[in-house]
Amino acid sequence: MGQKVTTQILPRIVLLLPLRNPNMVNAGDMNGSGNLMDFLDEPFPDVGTYEDFHTIDWLREKSRDTDRHRKITSKSKESIWEFIKSLLDAWSGWVVMLLIGLLAGTLAGVIDLAVDWMTDLKEGVCLSAFWYSHEQCCWTSNETTFDDRDKCPQWQKWSELLVSQSEGASAYILNYFLYIMWALCFAFLAVSLVRVFAPYACGSGIPEIKTILSGFIIRGYLGKWTLLIKTVTLVLVVSSGLSLGKEGPLVHVACCCGNFFSSLFSKYSKNEGKRREVLSAAAAAGVSVAFGAPIGGVLFSLEEVSYYFPLKTLWRSFFAALVAAFTLRSINPFGNSRLVLFYVEYHTPWYMAELFPFILLGVFGGLWGTLFIRCNIAWCRRRKTTRLGKYPVLEVIVITAITAIIAYPNPYTRRSTSELISELFNDCGALESSQLCDYINDPNMTRPVDDIPDRPAGPGVYTAMWQLALALVFKIVITIFTFGMKIPSGLFIPSMAVGAMAGRMVGIGVEQLAYHHHDWIIFRNWCRPGADCVTPGLYAMVGAAACLGGVTRMTVSLVVIMFELTGGLEYIVPLMAAAVTSKWVADAFGKEGIYEAHIHLNGYPFLDVKDEFTHRTLATDVMRPRRGEAPLSVLTQDSMTVEDVETLIKETDYNGFPVVVSKDSERLIGFAQRRELILAIKNARQRQDGVVSNSIVYFTEDPPELPPNSPHPLKLRRILNLSPFTVTDHTPMETVVDIFRKLGLRQCLVTRSGRLLGIITKKDVLRHMAQMANQDPESIMFN
Amino acid sequence: MGQKVTTQILPRIVLLLPLRNPNMVNAGDMNGSGNLMDFLDEPFPDVGTYEDFHTIDWLREKSRDTDRHRKITSKSKESIWEFIKSLLDAWSGWVVMLLIGLLAGTLAGVIDLAVDWMTDLKEGVCLSAFWYSHEQCCWTSNETTFDDRDKCPQWQKWSELLVSQSEGASAYILNYFLYIMWALCFAFLAVSLVRVFAPYACGSGIPEIKTILSGFIIRGYLGKWTLLIKTVTLVLVVSSGLSLGKEGPLVHVACCCGNFFSSLFSKYSKNEGKRREVLSAAAAAGVSVAFGAPIGGVLFSLEEVSYYFPLKTLWRSFFAALVAAFTLRSINPFGNSRLVLFYVEYHTPWYMAELFPFILLGVFGGLWGTLFIRCNIAWCRRRKTTRLGKYPVLEVIVITAITAIIAYPNPYTRRSTSELISELFNDCGALESSQLCDYINDPNMTRPVDDIPDRPAGPGVYTAMWQLALALVFKIVITIFTFGMKIPSGLFIPSMAVGAMAGRMVGIGVEQLAYHHHDWIIFRNWCRPGADCVTPGLYAMVGAAACLGGVTRMTVSLVVIMFELTGGLEYIVPLMAAAVTSKWVADAFGKEGIYEAHIHLNGYPFLDVKDEFTHRTLATDVMRPRRGEAPLSVLTQDSMTVEDVETLIKETDYNGFPVVVSKDSERLIGFAQRRELILAIKNARQRQDGVVSNSIVYFTEDPPELPPNSPHPLKLRRILNLSPFTVTDHTPMETVVDIFRKLGLRQCLVTRSGRLLGIITKKDVLRHMAQMANQDPESIMFN
Repeated sequence: MGQKVTTQILPRIVLLLPLRNPNMVNAGDMNGSGNLMDFLDEPFPDVGTYEDFHTIDWLREKSRDTDRHRKITSKSKESIWEFIKSLLDAWSGWVVMLLIGLLAGTLAGVIDLAVDWMTDLKEGVCLSAFWYSHEQCCWTSNETTFDDRDKCPQWQKWSELLVSQSEGASAYILNYFLYIMWALCFAFLAVSLVRVFAPYACGSGIPEIKTILSGFIIRGYLGKWTLLIKTVTLVLVVSSGLSLGKEGPLVHVACCCGNFFSSLFSKYSKNEGKRREVLSAAAAAGVSVAFGAPIGGVLFSLEEVSYYFPLKTLWRSFFAALVAAFTLRSINPFGNSRLVLFYVEYHTPWYMAELFPFILLGVFGGLWGTLFIRCNIAWCRRRKTTRLGKYPVLEVIVITAITAIIAYPNPYTRRSTSELISELFNDCGALESSQLCDYINDPNMTRPVDDIPDRPAGPGVYTAMWQLALALVFKIVITIFTFGMKIPSGLFIPSMAVGAMAGRMVGIGVEQLAYHHHDWIIFRNWCRPGADCVTPGLYAMVGAAACLGGVTRMTVSLVVIMFELTGGLEYIVPLMAAAVTSKWVADAFGKEGIYEAHIHLNGYPFLDVKDEFTHRTLATDVMRPRRGEAPLSVLTQDSMTVEDVETLIKETDYNGFPVVVSKDSERLIGFAQRRELILAIKNARQRQDGVVSNSIVYFTEDPPELPPNSPHPLKLRRILNLSPFTVTDHTPMETVVDIFRKLGLRQCLVTRSGRLLGIITKKDVLRHMAQMANQDPESIMFN
Repeated sequence: MGQKVTTQILPRIVLLLPLRNPNMVNAGDMNGSGNLMDFLDEPFPDVGTYEDFHTIDWLREKSRDTDRHRKITSKSKESIWEFIKSLLDAWSGWVVMLLIGLLAGTLAGVIDLAVDWMTDLKEGVCLSAFWYSHEQCCWTSNETTFDDRDKCPQWQKWSELLVSQSEGASAYILNYFLYIMWALCFAFLAVSLVRVFAPYACGSGIPEIKTILSGFIIRGYLGKWTLLIKTVTLVLVVSSGLSLGKEGPLVHVACCCGNFFSSLFSKYSKNEGKRREVLSAAAAAGVSVAFGAPIGGVLFSLEEVSYYFPLKTLWRSFFAALVAAFTLRSINPFGNSRLVLFYVEYHTPWYMAELFPFILLGVFGGLWGTLFIRCNIAWCRRRKTTRLGKYPVLEVIVITAITAIIAYPNPYTRRSTSELISELFNDCGALESSQLCDYINDPNMTRPVDDIPDRPAGPGVYTAMWQLALALVFKIVITIFTFGMKIPSGLFIPSMAVGAMAGRMVGIGVEQLAYHHHDWIIFRNWCRPGADCVTPGLYAMVGAAACLGGVTRMTVSLVVIMFELTGGLEYIVPLMAAAVTSKWVADAFGKEGIYEAHIHLNGYPFLDVKDEFTHRTLATDVMRPRRGEAPLSVLTQDSMTVEDVETLIKETDYNGFPVVVSKDSERLIGFAQRRELILAIKNARQRQDGVVSNSIVYFTEDPPELPPNSPHPLKLRRILNLSPFTVTDHTPMETVVDIFRKLGLRQCLVTRSGRLLGIITKKDVLRHMAQMANQDPESIMFN
């Protein structure tokens, strides 16, 4: 195939060009003109794959994909069947996206329904059909009146069912006890499943997905078992009432779907670079179903998790995100034809003076973000380094027990966190029965339903304020200990809950202040008596955005997700003000978001596109060998024996070796990967007669004629990368970092005046960056 | 400064590192440890700037910005004043964005108001205040009834005012004549202003902005004169009734604002790379006000125009786009607190069966896109190459006259195109008086206002269909000749109009089919008698998206812009189906969108990120010198005299010269820019005694001791780029193209085994790509 394309192009350009070597440059293509090769006419297995916990070479993956594409294109002219195959290949990207969207949407819907049912199972059961949640049970009942929608005879609390008592202290204690038991049961089941079947299913998964998308290999992290176990345990842990959310893990679940479907198409399964394009789109679909925000999902994938995001991927991600959103909507888990529980519509605009409390909420969000990241990382480090880490099951049980015991008495922590957020976001309508809407109505006033003026707070509101304050403190503390346990756990929802509680309290405060002090100069202009000037629900939303921003340091995607929840351009300014403030405040205490902090904690080799490298060091300061170290291990092009090479491989653990003309001249010819050297020598020894330990290894184009009795030479030009990346020793490190980031390199050779001086690997770059930032360079563990 | 930072870092890393040369690598920084330099202690003027119609070196610009940043950071520790200055510097990005948003929003509002008034001026004048448009005139009038909102005594047609006749043939002819006269007058004024004051103000500007953002320099293209003249002439040409829109030029206007404000801050004015970040954000603000779609604007900038778009820019672009949108909304040019004239809300969902006509509209859009691009490019090429191009004023006058003569009799072409689109998008409500809504009402039916069932078409609808068909043909033809004339002209609006007309006709057709054939199998399921099942306005919108997509090949940004117009996720699927179909159909006939085609026509050096290079050529095939050509012009590090260098500069026109150890060894040391060589030699001859024509030029670190009577040497290591980018001759061109794209290089040197072989410039890459795509490589004109 290779020759075919070459001959097609040559006639056109042959006049301009010197004769050139039609050899392949990258080892991935094995079908070129093979006159130099004795045995490598067909690729030997495993060439072009990577080892676990290693970094891929993006340029090489891209090059391999182009080769594959070229082959298919030229083949497609041969027959109708090949043409159809090439069409299918071109369409496979869209098919994968469609499948990901369908599966991710379905899983999200199933998880929502299951969580709904199991959360209610902690309190009681539906007699008419045990698989109904409380709400569904009473919907289907005919005896429900509009005023008391949650009470119906079919729904029985455990105390009613077991001891026929619905009120009283003993019933309360029984319900309390069963609530804790169910929670412990769910949590124990979850942590056991994770430990036994899929250890990678724990956590939110976003730090690892960021690392994987940046080109790291973690085998099994996106496997089928992880998908299955994560989906099941996610339902269990969310239902158990722990302070965690399903949004982050849903991104992981969607990426597992992406990985599964990409393994069905050789275009994606055989190319780690192309596979990552699919995973980026899957992450977008995950956020799309988590928040019901397809555009926000695409921007989240672009801003937060993806590394290599070509425009083609943008369009496909959008498609996957839309399909996922529509699939979820047709499942309709919330029964309101909305994608999320907390979709809201507000009826009143905001006023300029309100920017002050909004910015205050931003400051709160930033402080919470900093506090959370510091404490959580400290706790996770302690878990890693002390005996605590040895008892993950016990840890989960203890935290679940504490959570359940403290949560039950307070109505704002007893219910599921998403329901709490939904209630906090809601504007108080005329028919609202919530405690938060217990205002004192003016009996003389008759007004349309959705334009209720500000009213004085009733006793319910004051009770709610106290309960919210307690719930806020509890959430803040418990979330720090929950995130990072060996169960699936997202922190979007707990962060948003913290912000929403704080925001709602601030909102009610401002509202009451405005009601009781119409005459204050700041209220006089925008809050006449009888006007509806403060929407406490909006404060809750702004607070949620601020806290989420403080923890994750998302910006555009955060605002767009929130915008898609409210659906109006109107409230973008408050959200943006809070998000910007929160990011600035949090950044002042430390640049890392929670995901970066966890990546760092785990020592993954992640080269963040957002970090700016501003130090004044040069490539020569970073390359190895350092001054005083042994010289660089190199191969020569025509003077080493097979045994020499094998000894070098045995004695070092480098991932590859530069090949030079001779040890004296140090002029660089190419770069050979360790993995491929080993495979090639093994292959040659098995399949090629005459290759013995003292055969000379040739990396040159034409080995010289050897005396007849000398051992058969081993020609390895085929596995040589003839275009290794080089920089000069004077290149500033900021440029080197830029090159590593943008081209996705694994290593780069350093030369001076054409002589090879040393090598810089991605690990070296990351360690240098850590050192410059006064961090421990040894924390970067993988290459 | 340079030394300061170095000593700060050294103690920490000195143990690991070999002693290194603290020289600067990039010529931009001139304040390092200057012991080697005799005269270059202060930068000489113009160093680090570029010539007109040249390409910038992104890596170098980035490096210069990092240096600047480092200096400010270390200075900020010296005093409070420096600290405040560093804070101001950090905030200047946000200030620039705020200013751009405010000015772009204001200009857009002013343009909208002025266009409104001047368009109406062609028909008549308001007696109560001549600066009122027709609508404003009748709004302020007390005598207007609700039924007849456009008729009020204050608004007088020209015939009423001049000959006191409002009806009859002579009044019609007078109005017709004056309409044409006003149009000619506006168009003549516009083309004259453009020719005399700002030739760059013509066209849509988007092709040039794309090129500029990719790193090209066109002095004056974003200047203050261009801003002023483009704003004024834009109003004139849109009011003249020509088939063009203001949306594309608004992007140019916003970029001019961006350029103006970035020239106020040295951070942006002195760094071409940073300036382009501001321009990307300005483009987003431009689209934001053009369509009232801030998120769509950011995505447009990301997808369509930007080249280098770091995440920081994403967030700032979003801010600029929002500020612009809110500024425009507070000006409220359309009097409906919406950002655009064609904001719509639909009341009925769409049905799966409707996807078929939507996809048909997508096919139409793709065909229209192909037809338009081919014909328009052919016409523009003819204009460039024949005598036609010599009479731009005459051309504009003739096209305006033809447009006005044909447009006036047809009500759908007489009005402004945005009003036409707005009417076509609208759903027919109960109170709609438009001819398009002339349905036969069932007198027995009383129904809520916004849920009107499908009704049979009345005579008005049939007339409208004919007029729309004629208008469609006319628009298609005249737009081809209009776009590319020497006046500001956008084609978003004409494209959308073509699509909206086609879409509305298809929509009415489907509606009538469904009404009259309830019993057909496809209608039976979704269209019961008396139901409102087809919304012709939605078809118009889908058609508009399809046609716009066919011409510009936008994808995500197009769908998001349309989504922001309707505000509901509901209609994304039809829009997406049409956009995808239209892109596929159009791509089947040719990959280039209209902007890329115009870039190509003008020979700008634009390396598209979207093009994939899949040919199997190597760096050695592209580099110069080619086989048989004279060897590469190089400088040697220590053996050439000043005269030799001056001769080389005089005899060649290369933009830079590689510096090698000696002509024999061909080992590369660095790269010297022509511009800086000239400046340095001129400077040295003027300011440095003893530098004469036979002084030796040294690029080495330490020139050898010279005999006492030999001429004073010229040391030029400072202007030497010690980290030139190199690739080996075996590097596949796809990798080289990738490197050029991602790192934004100007040139790249080619080596083999450490020896310099040749050079590849951006122009070489582009010419090679053109050749591989069977295009004329000589069409790439700039470097």
